[in-house]
Amino acid sequence: MNRITSPKNGRVKEWKKLKNRKGREKAGAYIIEGFHLVEEALKHHAEVTDLIIEESMRIPNDWHTGNVTTWVVTEPVIKELADTETPQGIVAIVQFQKENHDVKPDGAYILLDGIQDPGNLGTIIRTGDSAGVDGVILGPGTVDVYNSKVLRSTQGSIFHLPLIRGDLNEWVPMLKEKGLKIYGTALQDGVPYTDERPDGGYALMLGNEANGVHPDLLEQTDLNLYVPIYGKAESLNVAVAAGVLLYGLKAAE
Amino acid sequence: MNRITSPKNGRVKEWKKLKNRKGREKAGAYIIEGFHLVEEALKHHAEVTDLIIEESMRIPNDWHTGNVTTWVVTEPVIKELADTETPQGIVAIVQFQKENHDVKPDGAYILLDGIQDPGNLGTIIRTGDSAGVDGVILGPGTVDVYNSKVLRSTQGSIFHLPLIRGDLNEWVPMLKEKGLKIYGTALQDGVPYTDERPDGGYALMLGNEANGVHPDLLEQTDLNLYVPIYGKAESLNVAVAAGVLLYGLKAAE
Repeated sequence: MNRITSPKNGRVKEWKKLKNRKGREKAGAYIIEGFHLVEEALKHHAEVTDLIIEESMRIPNDWHTGNVTTWVVTEPVIKELADTETPQGIVAIVQFQKENHDVKPDGAYILLDGIQDPGNLGTIIRTGDSAGVDGVILGPGTVDVYNSKVLRSTQGSIFHLPLIRGDLNEWVPMLKEKGLKIYGTALQDGVPYTDERPDGGYALMLGNEANGVHPDLLEQTDLNLYVPIYGKAESLNVAVAAGVLLYGLKAAE
Repeated sequence: MNRITSPKNGRVKEWKKLKNRKGREKAGAYIIEGFHLVEEALKHHAEVTDLIIEESMRIPNDWHTGNVTTWVVTEPVIKELADTETPQGIVAIVQFQKENHDVKPDGAYILLDGIQDPGNLGTIIRTGDSAGVDGVILGPGTVDVYNSKVLRSTQGSIFHLPLIRGDLNEWVPMLKEKGLKIYGTALQDGVPYTDERPDGGYALMLGNEANGVHPDLLEQTDLNLYVPIYGKAESLNVAVAAGVLLYGLKAAE
């Protein structure tokens, strides 16, 4: 058993760098915290390299921690690594997901253009997982998916779905070539989602909270969908819109 | 024009009390901040009593501020009253919404049992507004609707919808008596929402993020609905579920 008592330990300092996007990109790894996320990571074969637990914490016997280095640490060490105010006493270091660029021609995908709120991004990934999508493609301008607030909001769905970080201007033609239909989301030049019945694979593009999908991308879609507003609201939250659209398309298949 | 330069001014101290639930309940008033929320409040005839703006701020000529006392203040005063880190230089004091207990027998309502996350509550109200519901009934155990994070997440929908704070154990029989169908949300003893076609008015009950709707309330529903999970997620975010269910019911009407 490896022990670390001081938050000033060199290894802790290295791990702490993963709290920033730059440090994550350099190391190709990120931090998760809390019992549920760590359990989901192990269960779904994410590449967990280090499990860091507080002395008083007990982990279940059925966790497969074969290739994982376990560290028993003090509360100050956990606090140094965790992002929440009252951490649960367990964090883990996980390697970035290996990107799988295979696309199922009859699959369903989400394309994200500039989602900026971490809670929205995490909730969209969780919603896509619930609705059975086959992958999420994160365009530039979207908040880092390995940000701790995003991870928390995914509730573990980050470990269930292929995630690809890529340029949507390249992905849209590639998906079209595979035979997928590209749906944009826009109030202008769009149709209510209830008018559409998907016939084969598709990708749904969701845009920035304030500005929506970039006009250059909207021009490349096959059809733009919108969610009708029956009351006085100006718009829906983007994660709620994702749910309404994905489930609406699913029900119409 | 009324001027206040010091955040220690007695009136500012009184307003500041509205940042806590206790102070709001005592005064029957709350604080809103930001240009958009204040504009929506005025436009939809919320009872705005005081408009507090920073010296450099200009308000549009078409705002109806007839019965509103306007205060020009310094930046420290705004900071004292605002909740965001970089306030927009405008806050307002608004009286609690007068509760209207009239129920439309053919209307759609949301019943909330113990929603605890402010962002979720605000987003549910915004989603209900979008989906055209006629009111939201907030059961005890639900976070205060006049909390600043809730208000921000509603994006102004707080001013578009009747809100009632009440005991769901009293409201459920009252709504039933009016002829509304009560839908619970639960995975057990439920049917997929796509199986249901509403025929008349209804109320959809949503529960606590971790524990769902209280079993005592679920026993009083006419039918329990669930959103099918097609992937590996355990559940949907409650505001996303609200969107999927409300729009699903709307499309099936």
